Amino acid sequence: MHSRTVFFVSDGTGITAETFGNAILAQFEFKPRHVRLPFIDTVDKAHQVVRQINHTGEVEGKKPIVFTTLVDMEVLKVIQDGCKGMLLDMFGTFVHPLEEELGIKSHHRVGRFSDVSRSKEYNDRIEAINFSLAHDDGQSNRDLAGADVILVGVSRSGKTPTSLYLAMQFGLKAANYPLIPEDFERKQLPPALVPYQKKIFGLTISPERLAEIRSERRPNSKYASLLNCRAEVAEAEAMMRRSGIRWLSTTTKSIEEIATTILQEVRPERLMY
Amino acid sequence: MHSRTVFFVSDGTGITAETFGNAILAQFEFKPRHVRLPFIDTVDKAHQVVRQINHTGEVEGKKPIVFTTLVDMEVLKVIQDGCKGMLLDMFGTFVHPLEEELGIKSHHRVGRFSDVSRSKEYNDRIEAINFSLAHDDGQSNRDLAGADVILVGVSRSGKTPTSLYLAMQFGLKAANYPLIPEDFERKQLPPALVPYQKKIFGLTISPERLAEIRSERRPNSKYASLLNCRAEVAEAEAMMRRSGIRWLSTTTKSIEEIATTILQEVRPERLMY
Repeated sequence: MHSRTVFFVSDGTGITAETFGNAILAQFEFKPRHVRLPFIDTVDKAHQVVRQINHTGEVEGKKPIVFTTLVDMEVLKVIQDGCKGMLLDMFGTFVHPLEEELGIKSHHRVGRFSDVSRSKEYNDRIEAINFSLAHDDGQSNRDLAGADVILVGVSRSGKTPTSLYLAMQFGLKAANYPLIPEDFERKQLPPALVPYQKKIFGLTISPERLAEIRSERRPNSKYASLLNCRAEVAEAEAMMRRSGIRWLSTTTKSIEEIATTILQEVRPERLMY
Repeated sequence: MHSRTVFFVSDGTGITAETFGNAILAQFEFKPRHVRLPFIDTVDKAHQVVRQINHTGEVEGKKPIVFTTLVDMEVLKVIQDGCKGMLLDMFGTFVHPLEEELGIKSHHRVGRFSDVSRSKEYNDRIEAINFSLAHDDGQSNRDLAGADVILVGVSRSGKTPTSLYLAMQFGLKAANYPLIPEDFERKQLPPALVPYQKKIFGLTISPERLAEIRSERRPNSKYASLLNCRAEVAEAEAMMRRSGIRWLSTTTKSIEEIATTILQEVRPERLMY
């Protein structure tokens, strides 16, 4: 049973509102119901939102929490005037002091994504996603020179989701390459990667966690056995150490943490900041 | 030449700080330099941050803008006391009023991602990414019953990045299926999809934009010709109309907008809210 409802009201997708609101709510031992109300970009829709929020408050007997990222002042005003929830105006709170500091007015334009599909930054991001997909799991050696980063590691160490996250969030072309028994026998990195050493970053993982993850896919296989996982991880770490490759352990890290750490280490030239 | 620097200071990855800060800054005609300072989780690191920010301010002759998402009060205090930039404390600003409204204290614990790798929600997200990859571009008919949503559309209408975004951001298992000339000849949906009509959502695109996108991949091909793109799009739209499939045009939309609209339409059962 939820004790209270949290609304995320936005004239855009509401993804920013919800991501940020969730980070705030994570500071509380508190499991509210979430309602995302995106594309609230007219006064009419704002009135509907007010009715929905106030009705929820009456039913639950508690003030709903309302995070807003609204840039249209008319829409915001309808909600400020009518809503009986606790309003947390995430844009206004910071935009006004910034206007003073910068000495310029904000343009109150809706939607950082509006027709973004034509922007260079957006198209680079889509291209990065396509690149990362085409270079997943060592599928292609073509155009590795164009990669911003090349992840290596044993199978199921977290390379694929991390590559896709780097592409999606940061627009980076992230290839990834498995380290496999043949590489360990030769005691060398896959030959296709040798020219790109500076862009390589390694992922490792505890053998115990690896065995768990692999067992979900192929229970009772040699591939998933702890003995084999221990051997592969030891070989991979020894190879990365010998080759002077930076690496981290993904065992207790999220893809966000892994990606952020890689960015700090590799500092891809293409990244603007 | 950048006139001013914006810092994003976080004791976690800083991704929330930056996403939210960027949405605020997008309200201004203003191109600052961005510096992300993640994992600032000790007083020592906070002192370094203060030095870096103040040095930048002196060099540029303008107050740096400093967005923080810091939950450790000691770390935050070092920055509040020492930093000569304009401080925008994104957590404190909303956490304190929420504490009053909820009547509970926030726990000031760092990192919503800390050891998140063990959480069910996180593992579901990784599983969704793997599912979406395995079911990209009609690669597999296996376990379509397990999909939360199945996207259909002509080649290059935006299915792949949207599927991956739905998985990465919302933890949805999103399969996608191309509509190809064979389907148009039969005038029917791919047979594997028929049992799952309720979960199908269509993507279309203007033939002009499609021809542009396809031309980047295969210039001067029949595949990319405007004539062929017009025919494929008309066939696909007619088929979706006949089959009663909901659809939208991706021509001027970002993957965030497409994904949010799909969520509103399909309302997958598995989604918590």
